[in-house]
Amino acid sequence: MILKAPDFNSAQLAAAPDASFAPAPADGVLPDKFFSTTNLPTWVKVDGQWRMPAEPRMDSAIVRERDGGLWTREGRKVKRGDSVAVGSAEDGSHGIYVHPMDYDDAGDETEFKFMTSEVSREKPIDYSLMAQILIEERARGGYPVWVTGPALVHSRARADMVWFIENGFVGALLAGNAVAVHDIEASIYGTTLGMTQAGVASSGGHGLHMRAINQVRNAGSISAAVKAGIVTNGIMHALVTDDVPFVLTGSIRDDGPLPEVITDTIASQDAMRRHTVRATMAILVATALHAIATGNMLPAFVTEEDGSLRELATICVDSSEFVVSKLKDRGTHQAFGVVTNAQDFMHILRLYVEREITARATTSK
Amino acid sequence: MILKAPDFNSAQLAAAPDASFAPAPADGVLPDKFFSTTNLPTWVKVDGQWRMPAEPRMDSAIVRERDGGLWTREGRKVKRGDSVAVGSAEDGSHGIYVHPMDYDDAGDETEFKFMTSEVSREKPIDYSLMAQILIEERARGGYPVWVTGPALVHSRARADMVWFIENGFVGALLAGNAVAVHDIEASIYGTTLGMTQAGVASSGGHGLHMRAINQVRNAGSISAAVKAGIVTNGIMHALVTDDVPFVLTGSIRDDGPLPEVITDTIASQDAMRRHTVRATMAILVATALHAIATGNMLPAFVTEEDGSLRELATICVDSSEFVVSKLKDRGTHQAFGVVTNAQDFMHILRLYVEREITARATTSK
Amino acid sequence: MILKAPDFNSAQLAAAPDASFAPAPADGVLPDKFFSTTNLPTWVKVDGQWRMPAEPRMDSAIVRERDGGLWTREGRKVKRGDSVAVGSAEDGSHGIYVHPMDYDDAGDETEFKFMTSEVSREKPIDYSLMAQILIEERARGGYPVWVTGPALVHSRARADMVWFIENGFVGALLAGNAVAVHDIEASIYGTTLGMTQAGVASSGGHGLHMRAINQVRNAGSISAAVKAGIVTNGIMHALVTDDVPFVLTGSIRDDGPLPEVITDTIASQDAMRRHTVRATMAILVATALHAIATGNMLPAFVTEEDGSLRELATICVDSSEFVVSKLKDRGTHQAFGVVTNAQDFMHILRLYVEREITARATTSK
Amino acid sequence: MILKAPDFNSAQLAAAPDASFAPAPADGVLPDKFFSTTNLPTWVKVDGQWRMPAEPRMDSAIVRERDGGLWTREGRKVKRGDSVAVGSAEDGSHGIYVHPMDYDDAGDETEFKFMTSEVSREKPIDYSLMAQILIEERARGGYPVWVTGPALVHSRARADMVWFIENGFVGALLAGNAVAVHDIEASIYGTTLGMTQAGVASSGGHGLHMRAINQVRNAGSISAAVKAGIVTNGIMHALVTDDVPFVLTGSIRDDGPLPEVITDTIASQDAMRRHTVRATMAILVATALHAIATGNMLPAFVTEEDGSLRELATICVDSSEFVVSKLKDRGTHQAFGVVTNAQDFMHILRLYVEREITARATTSK
Repeated sequence: MILKAPDFNSAQLAAAPDASFAPAPADGVLPDKFFSTTNLPTWVKVDGQWRMPAEPRMDSAIVRERDGGLWTREGRKVKRGDSVAVGSAEDGSHGIYVHPMDYDDAGDETEFKFMTSEVSREKPIDYSLMAQILIEERARGGYPVWVTGPALVHSRARADMVWFIENGFVGALLAGNAVAVHDIEASIYGTTLGMTQAGVASSGGHGLHMRAINQVRNAGSISAAVKAGIVTNGIMHALVTDDVPFVLTGSIRDDGPLPEVITDTIASQDAMRRHTVRATMAILVATALHAIATGNMLPAFVTEEDGSLRELATICVDSSEFVVSKLKDRGTHQAFGVVTNAQDFMHILRLYVEREITARATTSK
Repeated sequence: MILKAPDFNSAQLAAAPDASFAPAPADGVLPDKFFSTTNLPTWVKVDGQWRMPAEPRMDSAIVRERDGGLWTREGRKVKRGDSVAVGSAEDGSHGIYVHPMDYDDAGDETEFKFMTSEVSREKPIDYSLMAQILIEERARGGYPVWVTGPALVHSRARADMVWFIENGFVGALLAGNAVAVHDIEASIYGTTLGMTQAGVASSGGHGLHMRAINQVRNAGSISAAVKAGIVTNGIMHALVTDDVPFVLTGSIRDDGPLPEVITDTIASQDAMRRHTVRATMAILVATALHAIATGNMLPAFVTEEDGSLRELATICVDSSEFVVSKLKDRGTHQAFGVVTNAQDFMHILRLYVEREITARATTSK
Repeated sequence: MILKAPDFNSAQLAAAPDASFAPAPADGVLPDKFFSTTNLPTWVKVDGQWRMPAEPRMDSAIVRERDGGLWTREGRKVKRGDSVAVGSAEDGSHGIYVHPMDYDDAGDETEFKFMTSEVSREKPIDYSLMAQILIEERARGGYPVWVTGPALVHSRARADMVWFIENGFVGALLAGNAVAVHDIEASIYGTTLGMTQAGVASSGGHGLHMRAINQVRNAGSISAAVKAGIVTNGIMHALVTDDVPFVLTGSIRDDGPLPEVITDTIASQDAMRRHTVRATMAILVATALHAIATGNMLPAFVTEEDGSLRELATICVDSSEFVVSKLKDRGTHQAFGVVTNAQDFMHILRLYVEREITARATTSK
Repeated sequence: MILKAPDFNSAQLAAAPDASFAPAPADGVLPDKFFSTTNLPTWVKVDGQWRMPAEPRMDSAIVRERDGGLWTREGRKVKRGDSVAVGSAEDGSHGIYVHPMDYDDAGDETEFKFMTSEVSREKPIDYSLMAQILIEERARGGYPVWVTGPALVHSRARADMVWFIENGFVGALLAGNAVAVHDIEASIYGTTLGMTQAGVASSGGHGLHMRAINQVRNAGSISAAVKAGIVTNGIMHALVTDDVPFVLTGSIRDDGPLPEVITDTIASQDAMRRHTVRATMAILVATALHAIATGNMLPAFVTEEDGSLRELATICVDSSEFVVSKLKDRGTHQAFGVVTNAQDFMHILRLYVEREITARATTSK
């Protein structure tokens, strides 16, 4: 790809002053306001001429040698007294011009920056902001839709999910058969897929989820199993007890399935959509299938009563960047990605919500 | 691969009783103690004959039809009154024999289980156990070596790392130039690689880590920069202030580098090993290079003063299973893998350590 | 975890000879048969005494100093003439004993090895073996079941999949709505989800898969759309034309769906199982949902006509180790994991199959 | 985030015509040119009024009911004769206006699209284009710099890498100690880290890489070991034999190291940069450390002899999106990401280069 050459006759560049230089105060130390290079084509105005320093690279300084030569040089190689370009403007206005190579959709130049990726495990997670959004949704009677995968149960974030249900933060839960199966296996047998809470595969454990399913089928429904005292704790127990609506949708991976599971996928989508049309927020945790299915039917915005619009806050939590990226690639651009373990996410989010509630209670006194 | 046929003339199998059957109590509901199938070759003893049920699959029941036919059938298809095999023994002792296909190193048969993988994001993380180990190490004067990558700083687990340093849980810190650079950039400019604490790439931010390095080089050393009040908080500040030893080892990715960085990799390894020979525990967070380097030189065990040996607790935290698996593939078999985000790990670990300290203080009164 | 001490009074260890030593031929060079250390507790018999070398680590040598001291030392630090332990036996039989710390299920000791993980992108992929299995399956009239995700179509392995269908390597294809939708979008519009074959998102492209679905719904079925000349190439076209059975199962993510899609997940499972009970091989490419669903209903073995059993070759291809690991964690232990891109897998597998066919044709002349 | 309301008084929207509608030809079938919805706020002009259809979601149709109500509805629910909005323009010019919610750096609106992520395993890999670039670089005497990690050797892409070296496609190879160690272990012992070519961990294999290193140290250098017939094939053998420059840089993970390894990381960077300043192309395969180090010192452009500039083609191959994303986050924005297995990449790239050479030879006759 051939790059467009800069127009040095443009008013802006033609009128630019010469670049400024300052001496290095010591070997391997640059003057305070040194210009820090990028990997883009760069010109420096010296004696009214735009010149390109040799050996370009990023994270370095520009040195003018006694013979007039301009070099891109690592700070550690600069000697005391070397003449080093100073300034931070990259648009030529102070005699240094960095030529953009990337252009956005509209054809405008983009600035050289680090850390511009949309989703990365290297980015901070703002639990405080998420906690505030959840509390505000609850305060204004919003309808946060939670969509979760079985890792939430495998990894014992069950207790935290129960807390969110019991404290009014869950408008509806959309999930699959497996979430309910593992949750009920945990309630009856203390294991998930036969794995103990310490993460150890137990002998004979491979049949326990089938026994859990069979008990619920025998009871007739999850609600009945809760009422009969077969299921005494966990997510499904909390949903039934607190009368929070849930939709369990079927998939080809399902064992059983449990009685409440809607096995027809079209009927499942209709059942999910009855909640997504009311959603004022979405929290998608550790599921690709259900997250993308929900994203497909979720508007990117909420219409307020006065007709004004706001973005529908959509949080997508997964162990890898891939699920969030896939969700965006299928049009759910408003999704905010959190790359972490589901158990840890639930634990810290709850902690921040609890703290924020306490802080607000204190403040309001 | 041809499978060895079972020896039905063996004493154990020859003497086995017929399998037991019980009627299904309702359509789609199995009798209480139904045998839950695996995907392995399975024989059922009926009228003294070992027979293989048709259409084998896992997570199903074995049904004997009126014509004597034996079928593997999903529970949902079983009709009230169908004759279903019951029992859980898989060794033939109750008339059902499951033939192993996998053999361990020693040639012994292995049992069919779920969740046998060594490292998985689907396994629970036992923070309580890790907190106890850390507190016990501190109590007995152990030497926990922490090895960290820059994600710890990028993602603002800085404050938590400082807490562990200040509270005596860190014997030594082994890291690279980047950890110190980002930490110092955060102290001076409030950013890491120009990214704000909210995760936004800032304009002109790409040069900030270079300016941070330059300030420390100008001061002469990290210690000097701390003493001069240039670096006023963070990990390096805590290490210097609390006199906890650290080793910063060089890599080809380094900008600068900072003055304390050992640029020769052989000298670096020697400096690291002066700490690994003393290590009584290792915590490896968000780094492949440094974790594997440390694993290479770390014994898998600790020799107690009385000469007895115990496993050297080694915790490896990463966003993906791959780093832990790679560490094990290079011989650090004792590593316990935690698949999560570094920021979240630090936050919850600290929380559990604080709780455990409080609990012990209360108990000991 | 306290380790069991070795029993030096056991017949084997008591009778062991002293270890052998040889001089280093030059600085930093070890004698030919040097003993290469592990990170496990290690004892060396010197003058009839079992002694533990100081500063244990892996990948090093054991040096006996003039004062009798035994040290674990990196080869680069050894000086010419230093006395270095030689041998490779680790069971004490030549005077060096490495104490195992890991035990398998049966309680037997395991040997120290590198690269023992079950699935890793760092392991070679044996395309030659897979090609042979496929050709042999075809030769004996086997029934290879292919299970694929939409990445196969996104990434233009379509042509390769068509080749396998047309050349008799596909017994049945099990997939979801999305595979057929993208494949048909590619046939009609030349895009997948609006992305061109060069991987560029096209303007207005977000609606093309919906238009493709609408055309097929209008035609009444995929078969009808093929016969009407609406769908003129690709996977679905080949399946219909070559009369290879396929099952399209529904999910909550489905747009449309296409007419042949079985929307009830229980009916879907039944339809899939009609093929898995006949399967003599399984190839699972780039799908978690369908791979695990198939794994759930697939026996781990094939029963030959003479009643003998062999392992059912199961190949699982995915971009990450996670899917294979998850499949095994749900009991499909026989799965052989291939960590690669679906497009590249299909391309190379076809190449190897073509080569093998040519080679056999030549040989058989 | 409150969204800016559209300005319906703007010339463009005020002048827009009413939207067009057409009847659905059958139940569940939409009219040919149906408007396919997005998840963004959408208004439809009916009787001169801009109105928002109820229950917005993507991938659906807009239906006007007899009572005048406007609904967003899945195609499968539409009944024969229903009045469905048609058109594809989203800017209001045909009576349907989709309100953007995302804005690029310059503040311009962005269009709703699928598949806009920068790097994804779901995107096609254009081997043909890469092959052409390599052949053109060779033709014009370019200087392609290859940077590789040890997975290239582990996974037996060795033969393909040798082919590229022997056929003049490699200007220089930048790598670490491990690449050379595994390559030489493979030449001498037929294993890598003790793993056989079939991917099996061999007994006693853990010491083989140390024995390989020791033999080269004994010979004095890799070149000497090649000349002495100790190393008889592979990457290092090809580089030495064909006189292609290589730089082996040290890291704290290194065993040995081999004699040519530059252990000082600053000297290593200088040695690498002597090649990057000449680079006209970069191919980074299966290495995070070396890829990012090279990216740091590589200009994003090449200056032609006539002073014009072109982008420096930079290909980054890794098993996961993360490394490419990290490389870009550190400023190497020009990197083109290929998400696949290193072995497969090398194999197919070579195949395409061979084909292209043959095609050009034929054409030029």
